[in-house]
Amino acid sequence: MEQTTLFEVVMNLYRQKKFAELKTIMGQLNPADVANIIESADGRDVIALFRLLPKELATEAFAYIDPDQQEQLILAFTDRELREVIDELFLDDTVDLIEEMPANIVNRILKNTDPRTRSQINELLAYPADSAGSLMTPEYVYLKSDMTVEEAFAKIRAVGVVKETIYTCYVTEERKLVGVVSLLDLLTASYETVVGDIMDTNVISVGTKEDKETVATMLAKYDLLAIPVVDGENRIVGIVTVDDAIDVLQDENTEDIEKMAAIVPTDKPYFKTGVFETFLKRIPWLLLLMVSATFTGMIITGFESKLATSVVLTAFIPMLMDTGGNAGGQASVTIIRGLSLGDISLKDVWSVIWKEIRVAVICGACLAAVNFGKMLLIDRLLLGNADISVAVALVVCLTMMVAVFIAKLIGCTLPILAKAVGFDPAVMASPFITTIVDAVSLLAYFMIAQAVLHI
Amino acid sequence: MEQTTLFEVVMNLYRQKKFAELKTIMGQLNPADVANIIESADGRDVIALFRLLPKELATEAFAYIDPDQQEQLILAFTDRELREVIDELFLDDTVDLIEEMPANIVNRILKNTDPRTRSQINELLAYPADSAGSLMTPEYVYLKSDMTVEEAFAKIRAVGVVKETIYTCYVTEERKLVGVVSLLDLLTASYETVVGDIMDTNVISVGTKEDKETVATMLAKYDLLAIPVVDGENRIVGIVTVDDAIDVLQDENTEDIEKMAAIVPTDKPYFKTGVFETFLKRIPWLLLLMVSATFTGMIITGFESKLATSVVLTAFIPMLMDTGGNAGGQASVTIIRGLSLGDISLKDVWSVIWKEIRVAVICGACLAAVNFGKMLLIDRLLLGNADISVAVALVVCLTMMVAVFIAKLIGCTLPILAKAVGFDPAVMASPFITTIVDAVSLLAYFMIAQAVLHI
Repeated sequence: MEQTTLFEVVMNLYRQKKFAELKTIMGQLNPADVANIIESADGRDVIALFRLLPKELATEAFAYIDPDQQEQLILAFTDRELREVIDELFLDDTVDLIEEMPANIVNRILKNTDPRTRSQINELLAYPADSAGSLMTPEYVYLKSDMTVEEAFAKIRAVGVVKETIYTCYVTEERKLVGVVSLLDLLTASYETVVGDIMDTNVISVGTKEDKETVATMLAKYDLLAIPVVDGENRIVGIVTVDDAIDVLQDENTEDIEKMAAIVPTDKPYFKTGVFETFLKRIPWLLLLMVSATFTGMIITGFESKLATSVVLTAFIPMLMDTGGNAGGQASVTIIRGLSLGDISLKDVWSVIWKEIRVAVICGACLAAVNFGKMLLIDRLLLGNADISVAVALVVCLTMMVAVFIAKLIGCTLPILAKAVGFDPAVMASPFITTIVDAVSLLAYFMIAQAVLHI
Repeated sequence: MEQTTLFEVVMNLYRQKKFAELKTIMGQLNPADVANIIESADGRDVIALFRLLPKELATEAFAYIDPDQQEQLILAFTDRELREVIDELFLDDTVDLIEEMPANIVNRILKNTDPRTRSQINELLAYPADSAGSLMTPEYVYLKSDMTVEEAFAKIRAVGVVKETIYTCYVTEERKLVGVVSLLDLLTASYETVVGDIMDTNVISVGTKEDKETVATMLAKYDLLAIPVVDGENRIVGIVTVDDAIDVLQDENTEDIEKMAAIVPTDKPYFKTGVFETFLKRIPWLLLLMVSATFTGMIITGFESKLATSVVLTAFIPMLMDTGGNAGGQASVTIIRGLSLGDISLKDVWSVIWKEIRVAVICGACLAAVNFGKMLLIDRLLLGNADISVAVALVVCLTMMVAVFIAKLIGCTLPILAKAVGFDPAVMASPFITTIVDAVSLLAYFMIAQAVLHI
């Protein structure tokens, strides 16, 4: 039996117009949960539910709602409601919102923000997508190095609630970043201590143009709650917080996985992508890989007359090609992930190749041995396929070793090569590798067959 | 020209015995950077470098160092050095360390901890791997609801430095978790305020046995800095902090990607895995998939006599199989990722199938149309392959549509099915799907060929 979901409880109360109970329940929830419920509602219920929320919860939940429903809500908002929501949003969330909305809504949003915020928004919008600048928020706490800890606390108390994080404070001199001090350091120091004496001058920061994946990886590597973003003259212009870094890491992982599966990446969840849009994301690589299989076809056609005399060889083409593809895919995906996590860098190319060669030789030998036994014992003896001679098994197994060797070699070098010339290594995964390995191992198959079977 | 790395500078100073300069430079660095340098050094240099570090930096860096070098260091440590390092480690890091070390080192570590810590370590070690209990640390700040904000600050100041985070404090009554209060809330309240009045009683917590991936996903979803872990009676036993959650998410992503590429997951970086170990992680799936290709071989063998009369059909086997495999891989990987991110759940199975069917029909039609044109224009006219008649092109293109349809259908259902019966959906990715799709589409190919070409 299915459990009643929170959403069903809420919608039942809503339909029975038990608004007081509804308010009480909603008030118990987290902004992210409230957003989930609102997203699952449809049409006019979305706005009605939203208006039932306590004001603070409503504005907090707004940042978690999907762009589609955000748009619906804004269309239904009065200017006053819109202003209340925008005032409460952190600036980076406002920028994200603006980037997703159509022009008429963007205009309404900008019309309902004060001039100072508007100019900050416009500045943030100017940073290239995927840059640290586009990800950061200007809402950080900055201190001066000659402040006492008592003065620092007064400042944090005064501005804290509207800043994205107060747990790391940045010490600036003429806007230049000179130090960083954690709230823990401030709390455990005496009130008279001068900030300059307890700040850490060894600040990890990133430039506005730094790739956002690099920024997120740095936050993860150094276990930071926030990282400051500086311009060319080391002036702090914003911070990136750890919650945004996690989202970036998850998005980049999804993107890599999609690319590895020969899909053009999308940033929308599965059910938010229409059928035709899904088709458009999938068809380019399918077409390209299909057309490039022409070479495989040409190789087979070239050996057609010889194949006709030894049709038994055809039966092993799929197995040889799949095994080659799988072996190459393993190598390429391992290298792609290593590059992305920073375990492998460009200069490691020779160590990678040397390791993969040894792995390929052992894998190839093991597969060939098992296959040799399988062909003679199962295919020939058990299934009674008399065409499978020792010579045929030898041809297949030799090809297997060559295919695995070439597959691992191509699989491990192509991602590094892609990275070296500035492409995304993730594209060099199984589907792409398979197409190349297919052609090469077929050629090897026929050449070995000619040499051994004299066909 | 390659840039001189920080590691090279450090090692040069070290070899020239310029220890004062070395100390100055190392003092500028972050624990994570220092760990990187120490990991790159070898043999006795590791311990010599470590001893040159300022004491606090040394102990902080220790937690970031790879298990191999940690073991080396501990073997070289005096008991006093070991005690200093262990005292400074957060408890969850100590537990991680113990889980990686051989028995003799574990005994030395436990011998050098005080009885209270030792019993906490033993408690943490008892939680199953991959559970919230194994990931948490008991080092959190707890307050009482009748404390004033002033008393709360006194407590935080007193215990803060040795707790993993002080930015979220947990309010307990007889160890039961009754509320949560952020340091920001405390800072912006007056000193006389009672904690119970400003705490949030709507606490998001997880059980000790909760899967660690779920815990990490919750931290990400609710934008938390830490999440409390409670036992069966809602007593708080520890917290999981956001930095550990990020590591879990990254590890789980790597594991999923490896499984999708038919690799048995490993938790070690590429260069830390030996050749034979890498072979062992890759060979099981290669063998299994190779042997299961027996079916494909049997199908071809069954149609051998007919293939001999129409060898042209062989040339398109690789293309049909690759396209099927790619189309199925796209669907399966999309679904696997959707399941892992929570975008898709078991009850969505029918919506998923209905969407994939529509995508499959458009993709199949598009691929078949392009292929039909390609076969007649390029293969027949341009390359002069007279065997390719309109009928042959029709057979290939009809098979293409069937293969894509079946591939997408199998690709989208198998991961959901795997999840439903409690397996990891990630295994149901391209390599596995390809093997099934190969067999089914070959059958379709020969049946369509018989019907259309009357072979």
